[in-house]
Amino acid sequence: MKTPFVSELNSEQNITTFFLVCEKELRNTREGKPYLRLELGDRSGTIEARMWDQFENAAKCINREDFVKVQARVEIYRNRPQLAVMQVRLAKPEEIDLADFLPQTKSDVGKLYAQLLEFAAAVGNPWLKQLVTGILNDPAIAGRYKRAPAAKVMHHAYLGGLLEHVVSLCGLAKLAAAHYPELDLDLLLTAAILHDVGKLDELCYDRTIGYTVEGQLLGHIVMEVQTVSKAMDAIEGFPANLKTVVKHLLISHHGEYEFGSPKLPMIREALVFHYLDDLDSKLAAARAALALESGESEWSAYSGALGRKFLRLEEFLKDFALTPPDKK
Amino acid sequence: MKTPFVSELNSEQNITTFFLVCEKELRNTREGKPYLRLELGDRSGTIEARMWDQFENAAKCINREDFVKVQARVEIYRNRPQLAVMQVRLAKPEEIDLADFLPQTKSDVGKLYAQLLEFAAAVGNPWLKQLVTGILNDPAIAGRYKRAPAAKVMHHAYLGGLLEHVVSLCGLAKLAAAHYPELDLDLLLTAAILHDVGKLDELCYDRTIGYTVEGQLLGHIVMEVQTVSKAMDAIEGFPANLKTVVKHLLISHHGEYEFGSPKLPMIREALVFHYLDDLDSKLAAARAALALESGESEWSAYSGALGRKFLRLEEFLKDFALTPPDKK
Amino acid sequence: MKTPFVSELNSEQNITTFFLVCEKELRNTREGKPYLRLELGDRSGTIEARMWDQFENAAKCINREDFVKVQARVEIYRNRPQLAVMQVRLAKPEEIDLADFLPQTKSDVGKLYAQLLEFAAAVGNPWLKQLVTGILNDPAIAGRYKRAPAAKVMHHAYLGGLLEHVVSLCGLAKLAAAHYPELDLDLLLTAAILHDVGKLDELCYDRTIGYTVEGQLLGHIVMEVQTVSKAMDAIEGFPANLKTVVKHLLISHHGEYEFGSPKLPMIREALVFHYLDDLDSKLAAARAALALESGESEWSAYSGALGRKFLRLEEFLKDFALTPPDKK
Amino acid sequence: MKTPFVSELNSEQNITTFFLVCEKELRNTREGKPYLRLELGDRSGTIEARMWDQFENAAKCINREDFVKVQARVEIYRNRPQLAVMQVRLAKPEEIDLADFLPQTKSDVGKLYAQLLEFAAAVGNPWLKQLVTGILNDPAIAGRYKRAPAAKVMHHAYLGGLLEHVVSLCGLAKLAAAHYPELDLDLLLTAAILHDVGKLDELCYDRTIGYTVEGQLLGHIVMEVQTVSKAMDAIEGFPANLKTVVKHLLISHHGEYEFGSPKLPMIREALVFHYLDDLDSKLAAARAALALESGESEWSAYSGALGRKFLRLEEFLKDFALTPPDKK
Amino acid sequence: MKTPFVSELNSEQNITTFFLVCEKELRNTREGKPYLRLELGDRSGTIEARMWDQFENAAKCINREDFVKVQARVEIYRNRPQLAVMQVRLAKPEEIDLADFLPQTKSDVGKLYAQLLEFAAAVGNPWLKQLVTGILNDPAIAGRYKRAPAAKVMHHAYLGGLLEHVVSLCGLAKLAAAHYPELDLDLLLTAAILHDVGKLDELCYDRTIGYTVEGQLLGHIVMEVQTVSKAMDAIEGFPANLKTVVKHLLISHHGEYEFGSPKLPMIREALVFHYLDDLDSKLAAARAALALESGESEWSAYSGALGRKFLRLEEFLKDFALTPPDKK
Amino acid sequence: MKTPFVSELNSEQNITTFFLVCEKELRNTREGKPYLRLELGDRSGTIEARMWDQFENAAKCINREDFVKVQARVEIYRNRPQLAVMQVRLAKPEEIDLADFLPQTKSDVGKLYAQLLEFAAAVGNPWLKQLVTGILNDPAIAGRYKRAPAAKVMHHAYLGGLLEHVVSLCGLAKLAAAHYPELDLDLLLTAAILHDVGKLDELCYDRTIGYTVEGQLLGHIVMEVQTVSKAMDAIEGFPANLKTVVKHLLISHHGEYEFGSPKLPMIREALVFHYLDDLDSKLAAARAALALESGESEWSAYSGALGRKFLRLEEFLKDFALTPPDKK
Repeated sequence: MKTPFVSELNSEQNITTFFLVCEKELRNTREGKPYLRLELGDRSGTIEARMWDQFENAAKCINREDFVKVQARVEIYRNRPQLAVMQVRLAKPEEIDLADFLPQTKSDVGKLYAQLLEFAAAVGNPWLKQLVTGILNDPAIAGRYKRAPAAKVMHHAYLGGLLEHVVSLCGLAKLAAAHYPELDLDLLLTAAILHDVGKLDELCYDRTIGYTVEGQLLGHIVMEVQTVSKAMDAIEGFPANLKTVVKHLLISHHGEYEFGSPKLPMIREALVFHYLDDLDSKLAAARAALALESGESEWSAYSGALGRKFLRLEEFLKDFALTPPDKK
Repeated sequence: MKTPFVSELNSEQNITTFFLVCEKELRNTREGKPYLRLELGDRSGTIEARMWDQFENAAKCINREDFVKVQARVEIYRNRPQLAVMQVRLAKPEEIDLADFLPQTKSDVGKLYAQLLEFAAAVGNPWLKQLVTGILNDPAIAGRYKRAPAAKVMHHAYLGGLLEHVVSLCGLAKLAAAHYPELDLDLLLTAAILHDVGKLDELCYDRTIGYTVEGQLLGHIVMEVQTVSKAMDAIEGFPANLKTVVKHLLISHHGEYEFGSPKLPMIREALVFHYLDDLDSKLAAARAALALESGESEWSAYSGALGRKFLRLEEFLKDFALTPPDKK
Repeated sequence: MKTPFVSELNSEQNITTFFLVCEKELRNTREGKPYLRLELGDRSGTIEARMWDQFENAAKCINREDFVKVQARVEIYRNRPQLAVMQVRLAKPEEIDLADFLPQTKSDVGKLYAQLLEFAAAVGNPWLKQLVTGILNDPAIAGRYKRAPAAKVMHHAYLGGLLEHVVSLCGLAKLAAAHYPELDLDLLLTAAILHDVGKLDELCYDRTIGYTVEGQLLGHIVMEVQTVSKAMDAIEGFPANLKTVVKHLLISHHGEYEFGSPKLPMIREALVFHYLDDLDSKLAAARAALALESGESEWSAYSGALGRKFLRLEEFLKDFALTPPDKK
Repeated sequence: MKTPFVSELNSEQNITTFFLVCEKELRNTREGKPYLRLELGDRSGTIEARMWDQFENAAKCINREDFVKVQARVEIYRNRPQLAVMQVRLAKPEEIDLADFLPQTKSDVGKLYAQLLEFAAAVGNPWLKQLVTGILNDPAIAGRYKRAPAAKVMHHAYLGGLLEHVVSLCGLAKLAAAHYPELDLDLLLTAAILHDVGKLDELCYDRTIGYTVEGQLLGHIVMEVQTVSKAMDAIEGFPANLKTVVKHLLISHHGEYEFGSPKLPMIREALVFHYLDDLDSKLAAARAALALESGESEWSAYSGALGRKFLRLEEFLKDFALTPPDKK
Repeated sequence: MKTPFVSELNSEQNITTFFLVCEKELRNTREGKPYLRLELGDRSGTIEARMWDQFENAAKCINREDFVKVQARVEIYRNRPQLAVMQVRLAKPEEIDLADFLPQTKSDVGKLYAQLLEFAAAVGNPWLKQLVTGILNDPAIAGRYKRAPAAKVMHHAYLGGLLEHVVSLCGLAKLAAAHYPELDLDLLLTAAILHDVGKLDELCYDRTIGYTVEGQLLGHIVMEVQTVSKAMDAIEGFPANLKTVVKHLLISHHGEYEFGSPKLPMIREALVFHYLDDLDSKLAAARAALALESGESEWSAYSGALGRKFLRLEEFLKDFALTPPDKK
Repeated sequence: MKTPFVSELNSEQNITTFFLVCEKELRNTREGKPYLRLELGDRSGTIEARMWDQFENAAKCINREDFVKVQARVEIYRNRPQLAVMQVRLAKPEEIDLADFLPQTKSDVGKLYAQLLEFAAAVGNPWLKQLVTGILNDPAIAGRYKRAPAAKVMHHAYLGGLLEHVVSLCGLAKLAAAHYPELDLDLLLTAAILHDVGKLDELCYDRTIGYTVEGQLLGHIVMEVQTVSKAMDAIEGFPANLKTVVKHLLISHHGEYEFGSPKLPMIREALVFHYLDDLDSKLAAARAALALESGESEWSAYSGALGRKFLRLEEFLKDFALTPPDKK
């Protein structure tokens, strides 16, 4: 792990650490003196940087989206910290831990994936089991499944976020099927495991989280319906109607046309899965808003995803223990 | 239980049974002969009835919404069954089982209420526990709580439907709190138990399910916030902020302004409870649509509440067992 | 072509012709006499029919959706014509011209398809050309493409309607590309030819126009994106990005989320194609409304698809020739 | 009244006056010299202030939201005025006139409240009269009723604004009841007087106008329905149905679900009152937009509440007198 | 006034009165006997009629929308009254009082129009006064202004309804201008008098209330902006900007785009006039719903215009006098 | 054409050229030295300017919206170019080419107008032909028609943009009428030529593009319906119903109420014209977004008018020629 992070910089400190180059520009001072202006960042934030001397080589070799190693001093300019760069060079791949540059889950990704494989293994229907285990064991998919965020900004917007979300949904699926005997657990688990598989390629998350061109033009629903269709076609004897049901679960999971589902849920499992997915996503968005500093003791930051702020309940009810200790 | 029900009548059958008078009218035939026309019903449907002789007394004593005992013969007129009434008299209260006239839950109401009391007893926070147990043990409330439907048409639209819905929600609340440690179970249970208490008086369900005038003018959300407020005010030391939280859970449970919630959920438990309530209601609506005869083997009746039909999955996938027997 | 059609029946007429059985029922008269009640139809409408004697055999052999040959007399019952059936038997397949039972295009389907193949042959880009000609020449597709309606009720709701709509769109595509040099004709033609290919299987149109279960659960957009994807994957060297572009054209052609497009048009050709498709469909809906008898001389029947009536311009401006004869 | 106000400061002026501390921060110059940065305000606006010497004590004692007495000099920094503070100390409560710090009505609050009491006294129905006079004469309420704004930003967003709005509505109620004999004046006056009573506690308006936590979680409609319910319950013999009517007037006054009314107006007086309330609020919003400097001679500032600008009619029609002097 | 009206017919009664022919048809009985079937109506409703003998001449001369004089006997057929017609002939124009066939205001139209002229005469601005008095005194307009309904179904849907609505609005305009000194009364009166002048030609109301073709294609807003523009252009010296203001008042009076106003109100008088117009219309719709028999003692008929039922307040509060007698 | 444009200025350059004064202000430095601050612009952008000496006269004579001749030196201040003004004077009208200050079409306006006149001359219906040629040949109109933009920001937002849009629409009208024989070309051409004539006065485009007050209050639809009505009234014998049809084409061309059309298209030509207008406008908006630098190689700038970005197809498909050279 790199040190220090942008959020930890102190005035007058001398540092040597790695950054992602967010912007690069050659400029002149008012007096006409040229300098190299950079914006440098890591997962904790960004900072302005200037290099006044011997920057010609750097200006040539270094580009936006490069990782660099920087030796610099932290100064305050117009009441904001700024780096005066003494030396800068391209970082070597092996020097960089991508986790320093993209926010990521606090959970253990390996364990989460093992849990997911267990859920898949518990699917009883032989075709669905072969489908989900086949996809999860495809190395091309597994690698990305462990890294992908669930979204750019809405919820679980960090590396491993998708996996975290899916494992949570598998757990909810089991609970829902136990509570409502009319629901088929296998379909719920299949929906949970596959419903966002299109996000592996809809999003790009190498150095920052964004959308691929294909992701913009097609969206994860259309992308995953193809991936999963191919996988089903490759399984001999997979019943045609079951294929239709699986595809329906995928394409209806947003629940409403205006959220990009071309069909409304018309199977009970599709209806229930939509609610579980929505619940887990929205609760994650509330959690994220509450985790941010808001400047108000009793309220979270404003959640754009939910269009509101959330109450910090423990603060509002701080005068007494909501749940008595012996009941916890 | 009465016998036969309207849905069981056969042509040329002689019957003696009880009905609710849905309509009453004195008419003349084209030839000027007067007769008494009735529409009679029970929980299974309604039927036209005519009385041609000695109906003067009946015409005087019997009114709309009365229960009557009828001796009649089933005839076919214009291809529809119709009753030719020989004798009719007002039924005595003790002869009538209201359950014959209003649809009702198939579950055991006594057991359900016992379960609900157990959920209430399991609330850890002393004020919330006192609140919910106090309300559930209030005899004026308990009697109605066991009878009330959850709605007129949308979901759980039968006697005992509200109780069934609430017990299901308490179960979901426990599952959700176990799945998401950040959620407070006591608040979820309190929301589940109290969120529709206003429906006890918003609806009337003596002989048919409808709305009271007060229910129309105020709605269950406003009605229950008053009931619950009074109950909280009556508990000494109930913390003021906790009162606000409980009221917020009640008024935000519809989740959106357009569904009649004057505030959006701004507490995580309120957000989650809204989803659980919505999920349980919508799944019940799907279940009800699937239970109706639709004339199409693969599709349910159209659900007005959900704006769609549902697939009969077992019919669509009838060629194989979705879940293999050894996995069930 | 059968004769007479339902719409041509006259009172007291004796007829021998073919019908589709829309409903079949065994009933009793008020006096207890059993009879066979049928609802019979062809593309011009439906009529009640009763068979009073020797119907036992017919009642056994004949079912809903069967084609039958009927000998009957037209009577008036309650001011409506009704058939008194003397004889009825199952029709042989070779006796039936399906065109008598489903509304169909007035154009020559063979010529239309030839035109479509010409448009396909004029595509310049080699991969796109191979794609569209391959699909149109696939016998399994061509047969259905020549029969399919474009919709159940909205527009071009008759056999051959889809083909008519697509050929019209190809023509518009050529005009648009000529008018706007920035547009690529090949993409527009590809969109026109493939954008509703999913309807071949979304709809069923053997004896009446309806939806297949797969069509209801997936919709033609999702269905065709798979068909076309497979066809592209089967063409060696088809560029990956061009595949994405083709799929985007298909999935965005409804133009808005609420009309079931999971993505908005983000390529100029997709934007323009959406407008052309919408224009051709809506004009067809207006045309259909104007073709119906409405009971008002100056207004068309109400178009549910467009939410309005249309003015019969020639009636409103009948006092003069809008376009002078020498200018036509 | 304090002098000068922020809006009256001139460059190079020496001042001694009172301010509200909006922000407080300790900072360093680029050269490392520490200083105290403040943002100071009153009802006319805010200004940056810096204290360079002997600020240690001030930095300790003074906090955000404190009132302070300041001796300073007005300087221009980056073309904006800024205060160079020489001395600062906490103000004593008796030195502060809150009216200097919050915008407030230009009307005489005492007279307005007397008018309101007259309207209340004119209510004919004995229960309604007792209800409204009781509430208005409750000292805990009267004090807040005279101070409360009607909103944070939408309309009448200044101290006394609520009272001004309500008195205007009482006047409108009288006019409406005189114009439409079918309307009951007592109900309209009751609605006018009580419809925003919940705002007394929904908003906080001690030093700035904002929302209380309770106000955010419950909203004034739910809050006032409880206040008014309690007051009605405390009046012996208050008819139950009249209670329901009063509550309906309160909860339906926003007129639409999406504006937070859980029920639509279903009584004529409720319908009319909604229009009067909306009219008075929206006209006040237009008035406020017109009162602001907009930089365009013929147009008001943009009103966020109304989503438009308003024409300055007197400017647009300045070439002639709209109403001739002898007609005014 | 004709007698009896359809709503007053009694079984076995012999009548001679006038009707409007709503439908005419030649039919045969099941036995092949021809007869003339008519649907006859007046402002109170419609009734089926049959003529069995000597109807050949009537069948030739009489058409839909004709007024006829009928001698007939009231019989009951299938429990509904029906006329057995003995004689029928075309009515002479002088025999017909159109008021018997179209619902009309209960007010005195002459007095209402005199009131309207007084309001116009009270306009102070000389150009506006000339404009409104000129239009109201135009005989071609005055005649229609006294007859026109305000709408086909929404509100004031009876002859004279428009005039009633406008006179009410003039009264409201005076009250509003007195209440809000910032409003110009002349503009409000001008708006009230002219805002629906387009309805004189948008609707047709000779024998039934409907829309003209021009009314359908253009709507009253576009129609009246032209009428009023011409009138202003004909007044010498009418200031150009004042013309724009008047037109803006007309075109913005529906208040929202979706209600057909091409511009939102951007002048205070336009904003206020929109509210007054909306209030008067909606209250009239509530009044109309309350005037209908609904079958429920406490609720009005359902108002399609308002999307709800209204409470019969006097019924709900019948146990006491809302306003004590000495206060009325 | 002036030189240099703002976008061409280089640091340390001495220039003498013309600008539009966008802002003017007298200011003091922190040290109290007064100076004249200007914001100067031309069609390529704006730049800050300061005049330190002998600016008293300039400060008096020069105002916002004036054209000035400036002698200055380009300096860099805070990394942005800024003008140090040596001399400034008012420009003479004959020195200014307005085209230097407002963006304008790249097409030859004279040729476009000639094309438009040809389209008008091709109208076959004599009244429509007289109408459109009369309007286009009205010198007061022709001058503005050649200059007007089609919008402030949405599409064709440059001088001559309206003409360019209309000529394109006339071309589309011809293509559509050829493709759909049921459409009347004369009506389509009339709609194309007249549908935005109101924009000539709705917008002002002398020095910048904005709205007139009349334009804001009435909008181009209402404005043009009057202009065109007058022109039709002035043509003897113009059929009344044809007038209605022309007006309907104008007022319905936005296609939906929420886009300001007070009526939906109810004539086939109106429906089709709406689509053509929408298509041409939206494609122009896409074209404009693609013409802007966006910082992303594969995506256009975000189009506010369309709510999305557009793909740069040639970039995304750069690896091969979409259309093979021999097919172009």
